[in-house]
Amino acid sequence: MNHTQTDSQTRLEGYKAIIRKMKMYEEAAALIYWDMRTGAPKKGIEARSEVVGELSTETFRMSVSDEMGAYLDWFTQPEELAKLTPIERKMIQESKKDYDRSKKIPADKYQAYVVLTSQAEAAWEEARAQSDYAAFQPYLEKIIATTREFIELWGYEGNKYNTLLDMYEPGMTVEKLDAVFGALREQVVPLLQRLQAAADQPEHGFLQQDFAKEKQKQFSLYILQQMHYDFDAGRLDETVHPFATALSRGDVRITTRYLPQDVGSALFGTIHEGGHALYEQNIAKELEGTNLCTGTSMGIHESQSRFWENVIGRSPQFWSRYFGDLQAAFPGQLDDVDADAFYRAINRVEPSLIRVEADELTYNLHIMIRYELEKALINGELETADLPAAWNAKYKEYLGVEPQTDSEGVLQDVHWSSGAFGYFPSYALGNMYAAQIAHTLRKQLPELDALVARGELAPIKEWLTEKVYRHGKLLTPGEIVLEATGEELNPAYLVDYLRSKYEAVYKL
Amino acid sequence: MNHTQTDSQTRLEGYKAIIRKMKMYEEAAALIYWDMRTGAPKKGIEARSEVVGELSTETFRMSVSDEMGAYLDWFTQPEELAKLTPIERKMIQESKKDYDRSKKIPADKYQAYVVLTSQAEAAWEEARAQSDYAAFQPYLEKIIATTREFIELWGYEGNKYNTLLDMYEPGMTVEKLDAVFGALREQVVPLLQRLQAAADQPEHGFLQQDFAKEKQKQFSLYILQQMHYDFDAGRLDETVHPFATALSRGDVRITTRYLPQDVGSALFGTIHEGGHALYEQNIAKELEGTNLCTGTSMGIHESQSRFWENVIGRSPQFWSRYFGDLQAAFPGQLDDVDADAFYRAINRVEPSLIRVEADELTYNLHIMIRYELEKALINGELETADLPAAWNAKYKEYLGVEPQTDSEGVLQDVHWSSGAFGYFPSYALGNMYAAQIAHTLRKQLPELDALVARGELAPIKEWLTEKVYRHGKLLTPGEIVLEATGEELNPAYLVDYLRSKYEAVYKL
Repeated sequence: MNHTQTDSQTRLEGYKAIIRKMKMYEEAAALIYWDMRTGAPKKGIEARSEVVGELSTETFRMSVSDEMGAYLDWFTQPEELAKLTPIERKMIQESKKDYDRSKKIPADKYQAYVVLTSQAEAAWEEARAQSDYAAFQPYLEKIIATTREFIELWGYEGNKYNTLLDMYEPGMTVEKLDAVFGALREQVVPLLQRLQAAADQPEHGFLQQDFAKEKQKQFSLYILQQMHYDFDAGRLDETVHPFATALSRGDVRITTRYLPQDVGSALFGTIHEGGHALYEQNIAKELEGTNLCTGTSMGIHESQSRFWENVIGRSPQFWSRYFGDLQAAFPGQLDDVDADAFYRAINRVEPSLIRVEADELTYNLHIMIRYELEKALINGELETADLPAAWNAKYKEYLGVEPQTDSEGVLQDVHWSSGAFGYFPSYALGNMYAAQIAHTLRKQLPELDALVARGELAPIKEWLTEKVYRHGKLLTPGEIVLEATGEELNPAYLVDYLRSKYEAVYKL
Repeated sequence: MNHTQTDSQTRLEGYKAIIRKMKMYEEAAALIYWDMRTGAPKKGIEARSEVVGELSTETFRMSVSDEMGAYLDWFTQPEELAKLTPIERKMIQESKKDYDRSKKIPADKYQAYVVLTSQAEAAWEEARAQSDYAAFQPYLEKIIATTREFIELWGYEGNKYNTLLDMYEPGMTVEKLDAVFGALREQVVPLLQRLQAAADQPEHGFLQQDFAKEKQKQFSLYILQQMHYDFDAGRLDETVHPFATALSRGDVRITTRYLPQDVGSALFGTIHEGGHALYEQNIAKELEGTNLCTGTSMGIHESQSRFWENVIGRSPQFWSRYFGDLQAAFPGQLDDVDADAFYRAINRVEPSLIRVEADELTYNLHIMIRYELEKALINGELETADLPAAWNAKYKEYLGVEPQTDSEGVLQDVHWSSGAFGYFPSYALGNMYAAQIAHTLRKQLPELDALVARGELAPIKEWLTEKVYRHGKLLTPGEIVLEATGEELNPAYLVDYLRSKYEAVYKL
């Protein structure tokens, strides 16, 4: 092939310009999303939704345009790829992956799927309200059938579910996940039983009092500042469902929810979203405006929110430092409690039916149940008609509780109605990554406990920036874990962490 | 020409789709603008500005695209234009006007002008801070030269300045404006002298106290609700410079500024912006998504903000109803004042140097000075070197005051640095339109004063919706005034209104 360096340079600039433009449209759409949830007046919502639709459509068009296709054909030639910088090479690879995935689905099939999931979400909402699984089942049936069809078009290696896993957690497979989830379940179930039988159960009634919202907000702001969340690159607002959204690395917003009767909800919600935000705020500046300027996977993202929420935020050292501040923030309300009692209360374990209300230990079991059911559905080993019974049986087996209605069972999550099969494992992977990363951090920063007990959290943020945050999507989740901890994902760290933590909490 | 009805129908749909898309991009950009001013974190501003630039560039590209040109060529054929509905016809005419205006300026010249005004704004800011007119003069010189060049390309009828006027106030000309401004000045200057000589000057010291910001905010929200501002289609926030922005007719947001030492600033700022917002919230639903879904001109828009702020909000009837509420909002702070004293205080007249701080009467003189200077500059009858002296002489002549520095004189406004010649007259036109509309309203709603005194403001909003708001840009400013009041713009109404109002305030 006969081409000059200038050809490549011009093409590279053209490619990067499309990527920047896509990022800009995504940024505008993200602001609209944030605004809709934090206070957009309701009569503007309909028109605004069309604006988001338009921007998303344009972004998608750019990602599968002939122009994009030509650039990708050019730069995926081995001799061209070799000339690129590591960042450029990874950019091209990411774009190519998106392009191929989108191009393999015929436009009319994809359009029909978008309509289907939109109807399914509405049907799910109604079905959940009525606890009427039969009303939702036909939609779920179609979504699964379409997903199976898409998997055939996308292709798969080994298990069909691998293709779905790879979307949220690049490189993750059923084989790996079965092994780590299996090891985890083997340890967590008996641990849970020991905790439930423990003589000294933590008191927790004092967490439910009337905690003034304005004071909760002030304390949330204080804790974020202690975490070195950068308020010049973000802000805290209030929404019904807490979330973090990165409009750019210079504008990473978080929201929380203040429950007047529960001091923990906003507090740990804020720390959790703050963890997501620290990740996005600390991505290297050189990745700005590229398709690598975001967290590398759902699992690694969740590891950061859970590291800050659970490993740091629910540790005894953290509360030996901050419980006095919490008492001072709510005068007279926590005077009869000490830091140790508070620490035990916020770590109380109780098997429950609802995932989003689960504690740190049992949460993993909620995820495993969903993972096993998804895998069976996608592989045609479970019919949607049998799903509620299978769900209930697994809850009985893993958690010892059984839903009385499908609303508090199989209908509780939105994910399946939106077609997000393969997403759930990220939550449990996040816990495993967090424990493994925490283990390495403790080895490399032996004074970790003392730092937390003094409220010196900057060295932790800096270590995570170096090992995780700055890389954005330049490294895969597997590379991040290997480079940061020296080994592949290993569930033993989460098992060890949970056992030693809960034996302390329950005085076993 | 051989074409079928289907051809036209398909083309019409294509044209409308571009217009809708342009509106969507404008809506996204407007949200970003609002967000930047109400609390976007500063580290995100740079990237966000690029997003706005990208969206604006795309909108401009669509407005001058070959596709747009072809649609406009088609539908401006007389037999095609005749087949359209009145709304479609006006849409095409508006697009054609924008298209021609944009197309007449060569792209490189326009680009250079954008760079020039961007540099000029920065230079102006610095020059104003230093009170250094000489540092700004070269930029102003170039902006005027370019504007004159553009006028030649756009073409003009009669005076060159007419082309600029027409941009902000379609149909307005120097000939009309000289007549109305002349008549106004002739009456306002002697009236001002009589008021200054009056024996009974209004007390106003009580307006300057420590008014708690949170209470000011509550009162602003209360007054907006009294005006029937629709909070389901808008919201009130705080910014350094108050503004109103219509993202869509279902989302018209306003901002105000709370000065702790001045109860009037936020109060009248809120009513003013609320007036702008009522206009946009009440445009007919059938204009949604078209290029007619906005106020018809700067002058008519300003007439609505000033109608609510001054004609209603500074009337004795309004305060006979609401002064008790104001006293209750600030317990103990206004107990020694009565409604009449308050009404006199907020209508106190005082010639001053700064336009944005001027009272309702002298404001018009500030505008006339700028109009006369602009007209002379654009027509080559005044050199930029002589501008400060000309400015100061006119202030002396019309207002009896003289700037000591150019910062409080010729450098006070941002408009010229951004090239917005022709904009200033809108402010005074707004006052004239407001007085003329108020005169008709009073004839058609004889119980007007009684309604205001009872706080029944809905019939006023409804009358204005019928006569002004609902039409959006479907009618020109001239048509609005003629249809609403039965005659063309007539400055006598403003003169009569000001004379009778101020004779009452000053007990003459």
